[in-house]
Amino acid sequence: MSERILNALLLTPAERAQFLAAAPGVEQRFLPLMDNSGLTVPLSDPSAVEGATVVLGSLPPDVLAATPTLKWLQTWSAGVDVYLKPGALPDGAMLTSAVGAYGPSVAEHLFACLLALMKRLPQYRDRQRGHSWTDLGMVKTLSGATVLVVGAGDIGQRFAALCQAMGAHTVGLKRTACPPPAGLDEVHALDGLDAWLPRADVVALALPQTPETVHLMDRRRLSLMKDDAILLNGGRGSAVDPQALAETLRTGRLWGAALDVTEPEPLPADSPLWDMDNLLLTPHVAGGLHLEGTRERIVAIALENLKRYLAGEPLKNRMK
Amino acid sequence: MSERILNALLLTPAERAQFLAAAPGVEQRFLPLMDNSGLTVPLSDPSAVEGATVVLGSLPPDVLAATPTLKWLQTWSAGVDVYLKPGALPDGAMLTSAVGAYGPSVAEHLFACLLALMKRLPQYRDRQRGHSWTDLGMVKTLSGATVLVVGAGDIGQRFAALCQAMGAHTVGLKRTACPPPAGLDEVHALDGLDAWLPRADVVALALPQTPETVHLMDRRRLSLMKDDAILLNGGRGSAVDPQALAETLRTGRLWGAALDVTEPEPLPADSPLWDMDNLLLTPHVAGGLHLEGTRERIVAIALENLKRYLAGEPLKNRMK
Repeated sequence: MSERILNALLLTPAERAQFLAAAPGVEQRFLPLMDNSGLTVPLSDPSAVEGATVVLGSLPPDVLAATPTLKWLQTWSAGVDVYLKPGALPDGAMLTSAVGAYGPSVAEHLFACLLALMKRLPQYRDRQRGHSWTDLGMVKTLSGATVLVVGAGDIGQRFAALCQAMGAHTVGLKRTACPPPAGLDEVHALDGLDAWLPRADVVALALPQTPETVHLMDRRRLSLMKDDAILLNGGRGSAVDPQALAETLRTGRLWGAALDVTEPEPLPADSPLWDMDNLLLTPHVAGGLHLEGTRERIVAIALENLKRYLAGEPLKNRMK
Repeated sequence: MSERILNALLLTPAERAQFLAAAPGVEQRFLPLMDNSGLTVPLSDPSAVEGATVVLGSLPPDVLAATPTLKWLQTWSAGVDVYLKPGALPDGAMLTSAVGAYGPSVAEHLFACLLALMKRLPQYRDRQRGHSWTDLGMVKTLSGATVLVVGAGDIGQRFAALCQAMGAHTVGLKRTACPPPAGLDEVHALDGLDAWLPRADVVALALPQTPETVHLMDRRRLSLMKDDAILLNGGRGSAVDPQALAETLRTGRLWGAALDVTEPEPLPADSPLWDMDNLLLTPHVAGGLHLEGTRERIVAIALENLKRYLAGEPLKNRMK
């Protein structure tokens, strides 16, 4: 069967030429469906996907499920939970992600939020808005702190490396323990989470959404954290029970928290989290295309995988 | 002439014992006048200073000027501009500062403010307060950025090292050029400032107050900065002309600015700087005793200098 490629990436003319050169004689349709934020532009003409064997881009699952010819989907997202649900892709279709493209962007965002909380910058911003010159007291440092990175993949490792450079001891938790990669002083299995939570000054979540990670940080686990620890979530919002976090903060526990992802998104207007003094909220902007270089990394992953696919070689970032 | 030491530091019992052991047979009065913020507690009984030859602590200049017996003042501040004014100390009195004690605290604060601005966290905080889930667009990274540190002393060098660890190219300006110390890729003479300003993505001021540094960043020099550069001030507020900065930001120039120090302090209630979207203001809290370890470093400097003084050796951090 001959290949039909739908290339939905946002490309420069030079990049488009590279994709054409990588697939000589193969039908390749260019239909950019990624906006500048890294979101998917609605597909005005669903027939554009008809007969596609390869889709490069995060098209809606309902469109892909209705494309029985699909043999491989390369997403531009790092998380692929929506495509792992039963029936989201035609049977037998391969799935590869853009994991690795967002690491610098998300890791730096989480790191900036962590330092802001340590130095009480959100609270100082509020005082600034009230024209109030008020000393808010002691601040924190990463020097000597223990940072627990729950989900030590690309983003988690990069975040850990930034913390390590400022003097933190970094501990990563992964599905299975492994020798520590750069940035992590230790790596342990995720099932040790409950034992590590009371030892961490910072708990950073960088987890994919799976049945096991939904509400991983529930009331009980939040209660295991140190009274003055900091919680960060840069993975999927579902990893934190929002009610439990609000209650925890309301009782004065935790130094602070920063969420770039929430459950659900957008955060409902009546959520108590909006107004919490020591909770810093950003609207799922740590990743996307907010940092220069991210789009280029996505394109490089897709191009490399297309070459591998056409050569019959194993794909990178294979998720299914 | 016999020595009379007034020790105004905030000390633990163990530290007090070290000072007593360092000066056997010498009269040493302990009168803690440093509060938990690192500020000077008003002296209820000025006669406590009478006859002192050595003062360990930042007592008011008028009190010290009226103490003709004073031979040496060790401050707990890093900046000593108030004691360098004519008549602030008795003739011939030596002056040593606590430079070095505040480096980690101020450098980390400036670094946290810089990352917050790069990731638009102050603006996201404002949106959070308005319950608004709004994507504010592109953010910045230190990776590949040029950071100009104006006043590359202890604080400036430590700040530069943090930026360098995140991938920045760091350039320090000092009164006179010297081989670059750790954290700085280049060091040049301060008189090259005008040539460096157009090349910097970040301009960080960590300058003492001297006649030369007052309004160093005036309208003309602010206009030399890149349109999307970031200005930080963690030294003395007088280094930035507040009117010129407000006008610069009002015209949409600069990515943002962070001031921990202002002219004057507190910032007047009617200053336009309070309400600027991309200006982050903190009330002179980067230093002081806000970070654990700072007080201990001040005490160590004073103790070391006391031993040197009594042994007739040259003092460290000599400013006069």
